[in-house]
Amino acid sequence: MTNQRAIRWGMVGGGTGAMIGNIHRIAARLDNQFELCAGALSSTPEKAQQSAQEIGLDADRSYADFTEMAKSEAARPDGIRAVSICTPNHMHLPVARAFLEHGIHVICDKPMTATLPQAQELAAVAGRSDALFILTHNYSAYPQIRQARELVREGALGAIRLVQVEYAQDWLATDSDTKQAAWRTDPARAGAGGAIGDIGTHAFQLASFVSGLRPTKLAADLSSFVPGRALDDNAHIMMRYASGARGTLWCSQVAPGTENGLRLRIYGEKAGLEWHHEAPETLWFTPLGAPAQKLRRNAAGTSQAGMALSRTPAGHPEGYLEGFANLYAEAACAIRAREQGAPIPDHVLTPGIETGLDGLRFVDACVRSSAGDACWVDMDG
Amino acid sequence: MTNQRAIRWGMVGGGTGAMIGNIHRIAARLDNQFELCAGALSSTPEKAQQSAQEIGLDADRSYADFTEMAKSEAARPDGIRAVSICTPNHMHLPVARAFLEHGIHVICDKPMTATLPQAQELAAVAGRSDALFILTHNYSAYPQIRQARELVREGALGAIRLVQVEYAQDWLATDSDTKQAAWRTDPARAGAGGAIGDIGTHAFQLASFVSGLRPTKLAADLSSFVPGRALDDNAHIMMRYASGARGTLWCSQVAPGTENGLRLRIYGEKAGLEWHHEAPETLWFTPLGAPAQKLRRNAAGTSQAGMALSRTPAGHPEGYLEGFANLYAEAACAIRAREQGAPIPDHVLTPGIETGLDGLRFVDACVRSSAGDACWVDMDG
Amino acid sequence: MTNQRAIRWGMVGGGTGAMIGNIHRIAARLDNQFELCAGALSSTPEKAQQSAQEIGLDADRSYADFTEMAKSEAARPDGIRAVSICTPNHMHLPVARAFLEHGIHVICDKPMTATLPQAQELAAVAGRSDALFILTHNYSAYPQIRQARELVREGALGAIRLVQVEYAQDWLATDSDTKQAAWRTDPARAGAGGAIGDIGTHAFQLASFVSGLRPTKLAADLSSFVPGRALDDNAHIMMRYASGARGTLWCSQVAPGTENGLRLRIYGEKAGLEWHHEAPETLWFTPLGAPAQKLRRNAAGTSQAGMALSRTPAGHPEGYLEGFANLYAEAACAIRAREQGAPIPDHVLTPGIETGLDGLRFVDACVRSSAGDACWVDMDG
Amino acid sequence: MTNQRAIRWGMVGGGTGAMIGNIHRIAARLDNQFELCAGALSSTPEKAQQSAQEIGLDADRSYADFTEMAKSEAARPDGIRAVSICTPNHMHLPVARAFLEHGIHVICDKPMTATLPQAQELAAVAGRSDALFILTHNYSAYPQIRQARELVREGALGAIRLVQVEYAQDWLATDSDTKQAAWRTDPARAGAGGAIGDIGTHAFQLASFVSGLRPTKLAADLSSFVPGRALDDNAHIMMRYASGARGTLWCSQVAPGTENGLRLRIYGEKAGLEWHHEAPETLWFTPLGAPAQKLRRNAAGTSQAGMALSRTPAGHPEGYLEGFANLYAEAACAIRAREQGAPIPDHVLTPGIETGLDGLRFVDACVRSSAGDACWVDMDG
Repeated sequence: MTNQRAIRWGMVGGGTGAMIGNIHRIAARLDNQFELCAGALSSTPEKAQQSAQEIGLDADRSYADFTEMAKSEAARPDGIRAVSICTPNHMHLPVARAFLEHGIHVICDKPMTATLPQAQELAAVAGRSDALFILTHNYSAYPQIRQARELVREGALGAIRLVQVEYAQDWLATDSDTKQAAWRTDPARAGAGGAIGDIGTHAFQLASFVSGLRPTKLAADLSSFVPGRALDDNAHIMMRYASGARGTLWCSQVAPGTENGLRLRIYGEKAGLEWHHEAPETLWFTPLGAPAQKLRRNAAGTSQAGMALSRTPAGHPEGYLEGFANLYAEAACAIRAREQGAPIPDHVLTPGIETGLDGLRFVDACVRSSAGDACWVDMDG
Repeated sequence: MTNQRAIRWGMVGGGTGAMIGNIHRIAARLDNQFELCAGALSSTPEKAQQSAQEIGLDADRSYADFTEMAKSEAARPDGIRAVSICTPNHMHLPVARAFLEHGIHVICDKPMTATLPQAQELAAVAGRSDALFILTHNYSAYPQIRQARELVREGALGAIRLVQVEYAQDWLATDSDTKQAAWRTDPARAGAGGAIGDIGTHAFQLASFVSGLRPTKLAADLSSFVPGRALDDNAHIMMRYASGARGTLWCSQVAPGTENGLRLRIYGEKAGLEWHHEAPETLWFTPLGAPAQKLRRNAAGTSQAGMALSRTPAGHPEGYLEGFANLYAEAACAIRAREQGAPIPDHVLTPGIETGLDGLRFVDACVRSSAGDACWVDMDG
Repeated sequence: MTNQRAIRWGMVGGGTGAMIGNIHRIAARLDNQFELCAGALSSTPEKAQQSAQEIGLDADRSYADFTEMAKSEAARPDGIRAVSICTPNHMHLPVARAFLEHGIHVICDKPMTATLPQAQELAAVAGRSDALFILTHNYSAYPQIRQARELVREGALGAIRLVQVEYAQDWLATDSDTKQAAWRTDPARAGAGGAIGDIGTHAFQLASFVSGLRPTKLAADLSSFVPGRALDDNAHIMMRYASGARGTLWCSQVAPGTENGLRLRIYGEKAGLEWHHEAPETLWFTPLGAPAQKLRRNAAGTSQAGMALSRTPAGHPEGYLEGFANLYAEAACAIRAREQGAPIPDHVLTPGIETGLDGLRFVDACVRSSAGDACWVDMDG
Repeated sequence: MTNQRAIRWGMVGGGTGAMIGNIHRIAARLDNQFELCAGALSSTPEKAQQSAQEIGLDADRSYADFTEMAKSEAARPDGIRAVSICTPNHMHLPVARAFLEHGIHVICDKPMTATLPQAQELAAVAGRSDALFILTHNYSAYPQIRQARELVREGALGAIRLVQVEYAQDWLATDSDTKQAAWRTDPARAGAGGAIGDIGTHAFQLASFVSGLRPTKLAADLSSFVPGRALDDNAHIMMRYASGARGTLWCSQVAPGTENGLRLRIYGEKAGLEWHHEAPETLWFTPLGAPAQKLRRNAAGTSQAGMALSRTPAGHPEGYLEGFANLYAEAACAIRAREQGAPIPDHVLTPGIETGLDGLRFVDACVRSSAGDACWVDMDG
């Protein structure tokens, strides 16, 4: 079967060996809505070519250069309609610009850019393009996260008082020389933030996505525990919201025994919510003065939104790849709507430029706070 | 990209709306090793056609009849090399026969057939064919299940004393008229076993796969709790092994609050193992006289076999679809080997005819036991 | 403070070093309703004397012989009003007889006796005495077990279909020569049952207590895995109830990695219940078609009965000793009522002779079944 | 039995109805090392008298006034040797002073006093007395907490990088008029801290106890979410240690769905530790690059210290009362040693004046930080 209805799609970065590239490909393939047709899979031409061959790209659509790719694909009648960017952060802006300016939709890894000025520039570029810009904050596409968001919006928690989010890993607890570690700990490629950029932005986005709240001030105590490391590998952050709510965000890449420990807890006047990435199909909901309820993906008590993002019955675990695929499925939906001149459906909640800007404002605020010895700063300083 | 290196592949049954058909398609697609080219997606011609269209099959390769499909595809130069069978149980034999006799590899839903005589007949058919027969006991393709099996084989448990397996669901706790419920509770289509065939065979296979043991005798107390139900919806089974080991198997589809609760516990002289489907990425291993170890997929302490079946780092949950995809990935590996005249690699552990026969022997023994008021019977009675 | 309102109380067995003796003393002391005044703490006179001294008993009320103790204490104006029996099983009958015949209330370790005939004899003795006989099935005094029982009685589960109970330990996985292991594996002292008597009776009682059901038939596959062991160390049991319900009971003392793993699951037409001893303050209740509720001790949603047996707020863990103390508290309540000629209050649910008889009938049925190669037998065979 | 070897002991506060008073009595009674002989159980004379009667105190040793009690008891040959203080915080200093000055050992609820100056004054008083002062930070007496501390001291974690501690409750999420809520939210009786004093000091002490570290600076964002509340009911705190380690402390009494959620996580260069009060018998220990180990109370892998504080075998849950009783058992040991002129044994780790001072320094620093809009302050400001 040539999947003729699939969206023709390309990748920049994400050659074989790059973990995240394969994840994008699986996620895009899972629901059969994208077909990989072109790529500039590595900044090293021979690696790009080899990756293309391994993945099965046609040789003439494996590009050594993303600018060339954007131009050529835009010119082909069967050119790609969307591209995913899986490069280190510092390349997000130039790559996204190249494709957006050719009217090709962009699906981009987080953080949106390496620095806030880059993010602002990208926002301007995107504003001038009809093409969509979608940011892969995949965790916000988990069904139980969607249900959490709905509970908040429906008022089930009452006024929110507390937002506690954390994201702990241990894979950078020692000096590592893997490719993935190398660029993430290099300011020239990662940008201003280490852990705060790599995983802190995920935690920040998730908390905002579910709570509907955005802090106005924060104080961030950034540390670099591993000797010689130029960027933060741990951050303790306190946050204040305009509504009077308070929050904390902890992100770490040096916490032995944690794996990919994203955890969100939100407490309101009337109820509390708890979600852990270790068991992503369970959302705990506890009204004040009532027993905790275990809300499970696609089970009794699941919201419509949660069910719509399910492929398997309750008890047949879906996980990270399915969450990521939800993001691609919604991206496909948005792309089709845009191309038909239709409004993007309400159920599509893919993050975009505004979310990406906020992520970089968050990183920027953390860095400013840290420069002031972890003083309080305005988010929009 | 036309995935030219993918295995051309078809489906019988599994039209849109059938849960398991979509799962097969996702599993096959996940690692990009199969390409769906043909199908007889429903026994109702117009449904078959409509499903084909929805899925994107070429119209001329959507067949109203599986016999016709087998013949036509075998005759095409670009015909399918493998087919998946997603029909109710009573169709497994005729469909598998049609394809095996045309030299097309078969990937078949469990139980292998509706009855033991059918299974024996299928075994004979498969014995005369060069094509492979692979049975989708997907749970045995979970990385942590593979690690459990290795621990047993390495002797980490010592001589096994106890095998406790259970598989509890609640979706048939009341009379249901969904399509999936209808055929599973109909002896004409499901065969001799209700819960024991549908999920009991999974539990039986999983226990045997990990323990390396096969019971010689069993006593099965089958119940049909829902009024009017012709087949068992709950089974309590005691098992005895030649080695002196003992086991129990409980399967139920009427246990409110359970979802897809497959659970395996194995105890030996020297250590115990525990695995629950609810958290499939964790294997508990406790040597006698030492603390329990939490062995996590793709994390420290994972075996080579477990890592080979991982796509994401530890802490990025993989689940049911990835487990199912592991089975398809191994099927692809076996198919390629067979077609190249090479031996099937040792790491490929896809279940086949022998496992399928054993499943039906298990069902048959349960039914015989039940007919004798839950008396003890020989497995190979 | 001389606790003058406490019930004067003695012990037979349970000298220092005997685990269970100390547990009885703590449990009795916890709510300050009993005062230890006399004892025959060991069958070895010098050990009895030494234990008495260590515990702080008056020398003249430390007896070498339980018969002497019963007689002397009954004659004293300040004699004990109740006695706890913490001896190996074979002594339960003679000791209980001695005290009951002197009108002294008896609190007795389970199983009630070593054999069914002894149990029947004890029932006759108790029937002739005004003194109470209370059996320490302590697990049925956990608050969340009480709440489980109420849910069943209120009909929250509808008609019960399944009773699954298990009790797994690993402390007898190898040949052990501790004092506690020695008598439990010796038919002369333990009686007809090994694991089935020691822990199987607990599981049996708990299941009956909560479900309100008693099996009419069972099939028991008893094993002695440790070479040279005379009694069972593992039992797989299937059970049938008059109502059509079905059940299984698994008890084991050879399952590495389990500690004191008592677990009860009950499924009815309308809902399911689950309770594990590892987290005794949580009761899972799942109505069919609704999310699971986590019912916590002394928290929102707790029944009156559960609260009455709580000493601390929710989240301040109570455990085994508090559960045991609940049994002593209810024993005190029953004793006071009896001595005042008042009816025993409804909330007192301490097990007695009938429960004890049932436990021995259970052991007897298991042994008969096992003698018939695990055939089905009548409970009241 | 008159427990003649028990330590004669009294209480100030803790009359019937006061939750914590009963907990002290159970904890003291559990191991039979204390005997309640005297009390000034309430500041309201008739309530004191009534409580004394209910509890069973001799009428002549139930005092209306703690000063009178200290004087009278000190004068009696059979006077109390120790007293427990269970009053609101503002009374801790005068009561402790009265008894310490009469040479009577004091066991005092936390926080040590209502304010830092009071704490300093009490430190001076204690310094002049031979009597012991013991502070009831009961959580540090849990066996698995002791084992955690040993692992840190042995270097199993390497240099500590992170200390994450939290203590979340929900019982003050709305305005409550229970007696316990009333004084805790009243600055005149509770002191300068609300949640930070009541539970924050517990979390602070636990983290220090296990890590062996004490922060030098902190920033505290205190909130009073419930309208009209004068003291904090939530606190977010960031901490810095002289070693370069970083920490956070979150305490809340307004987080719906939490019960008594004390949780400690410590991460070092070489390993991580995790402990939750919800399952106090489990300590998670994960060396970097190895599977997590589940260290259970009194089970394989337990340290000597952990075993010494156990009364029951592994799997027979001990909890809050047993942890509190461990504190009393060590207090008894310390008192006996002191009275014999012997050094207090090394295994006795009961907190005292220094810990109490630190708790009030912590509260004081939080309040100072909060007054500076959550700025960073020195702990010893």
